[in-house]
Amino acid sequence: MSLVVQKFGGTSVADAERIRNVARRIVDTYNDGNAVVAVVSAMGKRTDELLALAADVSDKSHPRELDMLLTAGERVTMALVAMAIEDLGVRATSLTGSQAGILTTDRHGAAEIVEIRADRVRAALDQDMVTIIAGFQGVNPDSKDVTTLGRGGSDATAVALAAALDADLCEIYTDVDGVFSADPRAVPAAHKIDEVTFEEMLELASAGAGVLMPRSVEFGRRFNVPIHVRSSFHAGEGTWVKEETMEEAVVRGIAHDSSEAKITVHGVPDTPGVAATLFEPLASAGVNVDMIVQNVSHDGTTDISFTVPDTLLEAGTKIARDVAEGVGAGGVAVDTEIAKVSIVGIGMKTESGVAARMFRILADHGINIEMISTSPIRISCVVRGDQVGEAVQALHTGLGLDGGVDA
Amino acid sequence: MSLVVQKFGGTSVADAERIRNVARRIVDTYNDGNAVVAVVSAMGKRTDELLALAADVSDKSHPRELDMLLTAGERVTMALVAMAIEDLGVRATSLTGSQAGILTTDRHGAAEIVEIRADRVRAALDQDMVTIIAGFQGVNPDSKDVTTLGRGGSDATAVALAAALDADLCEIYTDVDGVFSADPRAVPAAHKIDEVTFEEMLELASAGAGVLMPRSVEFGRRFNVPIHVRSSFHAGEGTWVKEETMEEAVVRGIAHDSSEAKITVHGVPDTPGVAATLFEPLASAGVNVDMIVQNVSHDGTTDISFTVPDTLLEAGTKIARDVAEGVGAGGVAVDTEIAKVSIVGIGMKTESGVAARMFRILADHGINIEMISTSPIRISCVVRGDQVGEAVQALHTGLGLDGGVDA
Repeated sequence: MSLVVQKFGGTSVADAERIRNVARRIVDTYNDGNAVVAVVSAMGKRTDELLALAADVSDKSHPRELDMLLTAGERVTMALVAMAIEDLGVRATSLTGSQAGILTTDRHGAAEIVEIRADRVRAALDQDMVTIIAGFQGVNPDSKDVTTLGRGGSDATAVALAAALDADLCEIYTDVDGVFSADPRAVPAAHKIDEVTFEEMLELASAGAGVLMPRSVEFGRRFNVPIHVRSSFHAGEGTWVKEETMEEAVVRGIAHDSSEAKITVHGVPDTPGVAATLFEPLASAGVNVDMIVQNVSHDGTTDISFTVPDTLLEAGTKIARDVAEGVGAGGVAVDTEIAKVSIVGIGMKTESGVAARMFRILADHGINIEMISTSPIRISCVVRGDQVGEAVQALHTGLGLDGGVDA
Repeated sequence: MSLVVQKFGGTSVADAERIRNVARRIVDTYNDGNAVVAVVSAMGKRTDELLALAADVSDKSHPRELDMLLTAGERVTMALVAMAIEDLGVRATSLTGSQAGILTTDRHGAAEIVEIRADRVRAALDQDMVTIIAGFQGVNPDSKDVTTLGRGGSDATAVALAAALDADLCEIYTDVDGVFSADPRAVPAAHKIDEVTFEEMLELASAGAGVLMPRSVEFGRRFNVPIHVRSSFHAGEGTWVKEETMEEAVVRGIAHDSSEAKITVHGVPDTPGVAATLFEPLASAGVNVDMIVQNVSHDGTTDISFTVPDTLLEAGTKIARDVAEGVGAGGVAVDTEIAKVSIVGIGMKTESGVAARMFRILADHGINIEMISTSPIRISCVVRGDQVGEAVQALHTGLGLDGGVDA
């Protein structure tokens, strides 16, 4: 008998009828001879409604209480899903994140899973019960306070539980058909990817492919749990994320991200340790820096540019200005009109010349490259924000991805 | 410093503005130098909405999951109230029934509090925090499953917590001004009672006065926690429920109840043990019998009548028919068109003739009495359902309660 962990997002459980559909799918999996653990999100827009309610009551920040509030959302879904499963003649029980032993850090609103003590889940499975677990939530073992995991938290719950329970498979049900070779809104010819390695998916997710969050992929990679991203609206195959794929693609997919901004510190004295002076305080303040470029030094000074999420721009700029003043740099410039386009493929490890092809395609379309960063299986370029759509489209065609199969 | 437990019902926390008002009231109590524990219900009609959602998903009974679902309601309120209190500059923390150590029996939907392990509540109070606790809910210590306490459960939570914490006072905030000498909808001249003993309140509550449930009063009596039933809409005094009152009223108030039905077993052989044969299976099946009347025996047979809540009529009738057949009784009759009117007063213990006055008043209004039961401080009569309004009005006037002060 296999153990399957399934995750259903808010769209899949948005109303009573969809909840019954989800129950039917879970029961089908169970009747195929599998043990099933299902992780569920809050119904539809319920989390947004709860946030609006909190905003009506208070315009201040209450991290602990906000988590207490938001965790009511999944609680409702999981109870309803369990009822619908029992109506189909299969025993079911629902557990909160806390009851399921999802132990997290104490960072309310963005807690990280540190351990899973899944005793109650195992006990329920031993009794042949389908177990429904609230996604997105856990408990801090020190304060005993309830926490939420932040964006993509239900996926992380599912993959981490699959790892902790040594599940054979984690299925992420979503409102799209799987992972695509590019965002279909930007590239009409984008095709669903059948298989992608953990490593590639990690790069794609980090580069802006929204379907899975990097930390979910990282759990899957670390504990080698195959993840099947698939549609909750039909039974067709989606995208398998796993250790190795049948074919090694040179370019598996293209991701883009318009949610970052660029900060440039001009005229920085080019002395040893000056980069650390800038990036240490950014790290301490929790400002995640993505790309960093340091230009070649002229007359003893240099320009350092880096990108941060839009949401951290204000904090990042303030720190950059303080540091610039401290080290006697020329000044700080901010640019919010940028976007990043990335190509990802495991085959880049062995095939050279991909970067050159990418740069040529962009140049042929008159798209200027402002920053470049690379990993062994990814090349990212920062371009003007209003050119990113054209960039993705041109790369998809130019790199031979339009054909509809993995390149 | 005093410790005050306050309870706010669904109407008092129905929207963001009312939640801020409740927070203001809690903070006022805190700023007066009290430690405060506040018990809250689900917002407005939220519990009904959750029940409707469950009915949309399933038409079957799922007691465990229904409790999981419903407990989301108070969770939302308590987090919002805690936020609103913090906005007023007072530290606050919310706790679920489980976190507050409300241990209950395992009877989902109608669990009874068996013990309160209030360590986390005490720890919060020791840190000078106002503590907001979800009413109506607890946890069964064996299954670790979340339970709900059923109707009036939030009052029970508040009074039981007050007892466990050795609080000086329990305030029940409600949408009426206090306990009335009769239902003001039936008796326009009904007046608010200033003080009532636990014993009287227990009788009034059991006889149908809706403002407090009997088990809440029983907690107050057993642990001698004074209960102040008062309006959440103004600061005026409500009704104090306590061990002793300044004045001993002969008749403190009149309660009526139209939610019972009468079952009569005719022609029962009048042999020893026949009553036990009838009432033992009713008790085993959880059919709460209220009044019992056995008529004088004629020719070796007797009639036994008893009243049960309307909701248990079907179960009660079935058992009565089985027993009637078993003992060779004549038959079973059911009457749903009855109502009960009760007069309650501690002074009845010493003053005789009150029953005779009650019967005379009813007779003068042409109201036939079908069953009578008494306790040392209460007399109840079953009358025709369509005459109960007139009966309450006549007794309120005839027993001198119209004057506006305790009789």
